[in-house]
Amino acid sequence: MDILKKLNADDYIDILNDVLKDICPTDSEKEELKIFSDKIISKIKDISKYPVLDIIQVGSTARDANLKNDHDIDIFLRFEKETDRDMLKELGLKLGKDVINYFNGKSWIEYAEHPYVSGEIGKFNLDIVPCYDIENCEKIISAVDRTPLHNEFLLNAYENNDLSNDIRLLKKFLKGLGIYGSDLKTAGFSGYLCELLILKYGGFLNLLSAVQTWKPKHSIVLNEIYEMYDLKKDHDFLKFNDSLVVYDPVDLNRNVAAALNEENLCKFIFYSKMFLKKPSKEFFYGFYKKTTDLLNQRKRGYLITLEISRPENVVEDVIYPQMEKIQKSINKLVKEHDFEYLRYQNFADDDTCYLSWEFLIHELPDVKLRIGPPVYSEQGVLNFITHNEHYFVKECNVCAYKTRKYKNIQILFEDIVNGKLKNIITYPKYVCPENAKIRLGTFIERK
Amino acid sequence: MDILKKLNADDYIDILNDVLKDICPTDSEKEELKIFSDKIISKIKDISKYPVLDIIQVGSTARDANLKNDHDIDIFLRFEKETDRDMLKELGLKLGKDVINYFNGKSWIEYAEHPYVSGEIGKFNLDIVPCYDIENCEKIISAVDRTPLHNEFLLNAYENNDLSNDIRLLKKFLKGLGIYGSDLKTAGFSGYLCELLILKYGGFLNLLSAVQTWKPKHSIVLNEIYEMYDLKKDHDFLKFNDSLVVYDPVDLNRNVAAALNEENLCKFIFYSKMFLKKPSKEFFYGFYKKTTDLLNQRKRGYLITLEISRPENVVEDVIYPQMEKIQKSINKLVKEHDFEYLRYQNFADDDTCYLSWEFLIHELPDVKLRIGPPVYSEQGVLNFITHNEHYFVKECNVCAYKTRKYKNIQILFEDIVNGKLKNIITYPKYVCPENAKIRLGTFIERK
Repeated sequence: MDILKKLNADDYIDILNDVLKDICPTDSEKEELKIFSDKIISKIKDISKYPVLDIIQVGSTARDANLKNDHDIDIFLRFEKETDRDMLKELGLKLGKDVINYFNGKSWIEYAEHPYVSGEIGKFNLDIVPCYDIENCEKIISAVDRTPLHNEFLLNAYENNDLSNDIRLLKKFLKGLGIYGSDLKTAGFSGYLCELLILKYGGFLNLLSAVQTWKPKHSIVLNEIYEMYDLKKDHDFLKFNDSLVVYDPVDLNRNVAAALNEENLCKFIFYSKMFLKKPSKEFFYGFYKKTTDLLNQRKRGYLITLEISRPENVVEDVIYPQMEKIQKSINKLVKEHDFEYLRYQNFADDDTCYLSWEFLIHELPDVKLRIGPPVYSEQGVLNFITHNEHYFVKECNVCAYKTRKYKNIQILFEDIVNGKLKNIITYPKYVCPENAKIRLGTFIERK
Repeated sequence: MDILKKLNADDYIDILNDVLKDICPTDSEKEELKIFSDKIISKIKDISKYPVLDIIQVGSTARDANLKNDHDIDIFLRFEKETDRDMLKELGLKLGKDVINYFNGKSWIEYAEHPYVSGEIGKFNLDIVPCYDIENCEKIISAVDRTPLHNEFLLNAYENNDLSNDIRLLKKFLKGLGIYGSDLKTAGFSGYLCELLILKYGGFLNLLSAVQTWKPKHSIVLNEIYEMYDLKKDHDFLKFNDSLVVYDPVDLNRNVAAALNEENLCKFIFYSKMFLKKPSKEFFYGFYKKTTDLLNQRKRGYLITLEISRPENVVEDVIYPQMEKIQKSINKLVKEHDFEYLRYQNFADDDTCYLSWEFLIHELPDVKLRIGPPVYSEQGVLNFITHNEHYFVKECNVCAYKTRKYKNIQILFEDIVNGKLKNIITYPKYVCPENAKIRLGTFIERK
């Protein structure tokens, strides 16, 4: 590996230190956060009782892995496994509200798989989340039950190995590339995945070098896993069909990188290479947006955007997969009619879903060539000629001229918004292109 | 084979008899031709002497395989092998001229590998051609030495097996399809090939059925060959890379079907199938032209024709391969610039070579996508980014936007006729597109 051979931490140290100055919380900031969260936990301990077994602070702030000005305090209330789900919900909400009221904060309810309390006390943001007390590799009861186990695992693993700043650098680097976050819009790296990767490779630069040797569908098992579960080196792990596989130390049947899509993994590999080749602070600060802006200073193809009204109260995690789905259905249709796009993208703001395309081929003549079977295939040829007029032999296949249905991509899009293609493509519930507005000459970039 | 199973000669007999009425010479026509050619031969015998060994009538009229109104009499003068080439030429021309003069005909010299005499006596056309007397499978001395051997072989093979009318039907059928003739313009079936095929399959309909089972690169060895040369059934014949291989009984190292191109073989297979499925006299009379005219009653793509001056005295067998060559070079260039044609064709009249194209994609946006190596390939990626600006990651490959050189096919053709692409495509000697005329909206069909 060329890059690895040349890799010399001295070439990067000034740049990384510069970035760290921006992103590492100061000692007083850390101290203040620690004192405040201890107070909260101690108060909850006072007012809680069985079936609440313990109160745990989780998340990056609990592990000194947060970025500067990240004042999120995540507190988990761990309930006895046999607790009735309604009781867990009710007690969880009550404890959360009570403690935030006690500190004169503002609280509200957030809805995930079960509702939990979110709030603000001064500059601090709190999430107070009830969950069940399970063991490593035990089946989860509610969706968030693994979080305290992740926390425990990381605290143990990093006990004698302070890589907090490397974790911070990685998070900031991924933010620069627009691929930090495991929500369905971003489809990038979760914070937990970042911490596991830094643990595996022992640092930010080592990770960036290591990914240069990754092949598609790279799979990672932490050494800690073999120790924790006393596994042989040739242990047969569950197979996943994801672009990157990182086995979760607290649940070997879970891939921590499942939400990361291949495109974003590839961006990470590529821009890591670029950074190692020519390090610069640029990568950490809105880099991907700047790169995109630069890329857009070029000649364009034929642009078209569908503007679809976004229904109220439908969250990003629902909207984005549906936009992706309908856009892929349209892509398939577009190709079937011999048009060709250069790229496509979707983006939603509060009111509108935007599906954009840039076309290389947007206009075609009336005539279309249908290529049939080789003349050597008797039955195929007979079938073909009974279903086609204007047939002839070309390059040893029987072929036919057809009249094209869509000469111009605009007409195809008009049929989509008129609902004429409803029996060909399935319109998703919340991103329905019927009655959408067609905007020519416009391409909406994702923000 | 569906068609074979269903094949019943009765379904075809009326049609074929109808055609034969048109194409089979009458008895009196045959008689007249026989008497006349015997007179010619007898006269040549009178006036010729050593090193002329014998005088042979060859060609389809010699074998009762000619079509009605074909009054071509081909006479070969076979010379002793040791004869000096100049003497053969001189004596050949003298004998030819003398005999045609004797019968008060008109004669002139034609030029092939060596010159020979052509002439007209009344309604008869004569060719009087000197050649060397060689044996089967012996190396030829002049290009035409095999002809008398072909004649002998066929006369022997057909001795007890009159398939003259089947040969005539096949020739007429191929003429209807525009694929009769082994010249470089037609690239179809020679008369000799027709006679061998009818011999092999025992008749016209049988041949049409048999070709339905052919696979690409079908190879045919006549039973007569095994007998003549006393070969085992597993004899290892020379391999040819042609679309159809028919071993020449008089020279096993020669493929009689070498001049037949794959496209014409495929037309034969296809239209044989059509004829067997739905027999009609139509197939035998200008069928391919009618089919093409019908096909042309359709919507068109973007048409463009290059008109190139045809130099004087350059024969079809030189012009057509050169037109094909330059057109294929232009096709390659066209594809490299992302344009797409539906079909192309060339045709030459006395003054002009016409290269025509019908385009499906003739206009493109300025922007072009160059797809580089996968991001996983380190060295490839580094090379790519040093040679490209505006690079980015797309579907796991590093890609770049380029500005397109040719937005419109017309501009590309202008550069061809301006000679700007001379270092990219080789302009053939006699079909040179420099200073050619570009005609938009025109497609010249081959006649």
